[in-house]
Amino acid sequence: MEPRISLITLGVSDLGRARSFYEALGWAGQSVQETVFFQVGGLALVLWDRDRLALDCGVEDQRPAGFGGIALAHNVRSPAEVDQLIATAERAGGTVTRPAATTFYGGYAGVFLDPDGHAWEVAHNPSFPLAADGSLTVPDFDTR
Amino acid sequence: MEPRISLITLGVSDLGRARSFYEALGWAGQSVQETVFFQVGGLALVLWDRDRLALDCGVEDQRPAGFGGIALAHNVRSPAEVDQLIATAERAGGTVTRPAATTFYGGYAGVFLDPDGHAWEVAHNPSFPLAADGSLTVPDFDTR
Repeated sequence: MEPRISLITLGVSDLGRARSFYEALGWAGQSVQETVFFQVGGLALVLWDRDRLALDCGVEDQRPAGFGGIALAHNVRSPAEVDQLIATAERAGGTVTRPAATTFYGGYAGVFLDPDGHAWEVAHNPSFPLAADGSLTVPDFDTR
Repeated sequence: MEPRISLITLGVSDLGRARSFYEALGWAGQSVQETVFFQVGGLALVLWDRDRLALDCGVEDQRPAGFGGIALAHNVRSPAEVDQLIATAERAGGTVTRPAATTFYGGYAGVFLDPDGHAWEVAHNPSFPLAADGSLTVPDFDTR
């Protein structure tokens, strides 16, 4: 398994609402049949009906709302950008579950949930610099 | 919000078991405090205790196992690679919930769950070519 992730598909209950939310954050989606695709760096974020996603994965979905055990993170280049994005997400209908604050690792971050409860951390982490193209490189922790 | 995802954190119940599973698939992790970081393309996949992840996100986790409403996908360059990776995942302790088969979009794909129930689709999709660096570009569907 080469080191890559190609798509992240979020199960949603209302495709139009979910699309509007992510477009309010500034991303541009494409409708493809009953899904919406967003190009995010070198991968795709996809929105799709949660019931169909569960069926497609061959799993039973016993819990149609709430925390799914996964958090996505969007890192930014400054603490001010964290505040701006958390405020934008809240205006767009997201729920701030952890207001932005200084973190134990010397960064600054907060968390919001999208309209379907998917968790996003917005973080400025000086130890994880972003490249010009937005990609993140995990530091070599052993040699620090 | 610029178009990128920086980290994907999977909540797990047994960090050692989860790390062993992903290392059996061929990824190399780094232990960082109570987490494990994998560099996957331009982002990081992180394993962390699910209870702590929920707490960190400021959410209550009412459902400690099962489908979380998100599916990750790992695209490969041939149908044979799909079969190989699904078999490797099964040997490593994953659960195949959708055996590899031809898909409606003319590809070939299957789905496995990791030991904590996180869903991974392994897909060969001729319409979504992978670049040499493994990155995926969403086609311009409007002009096809």
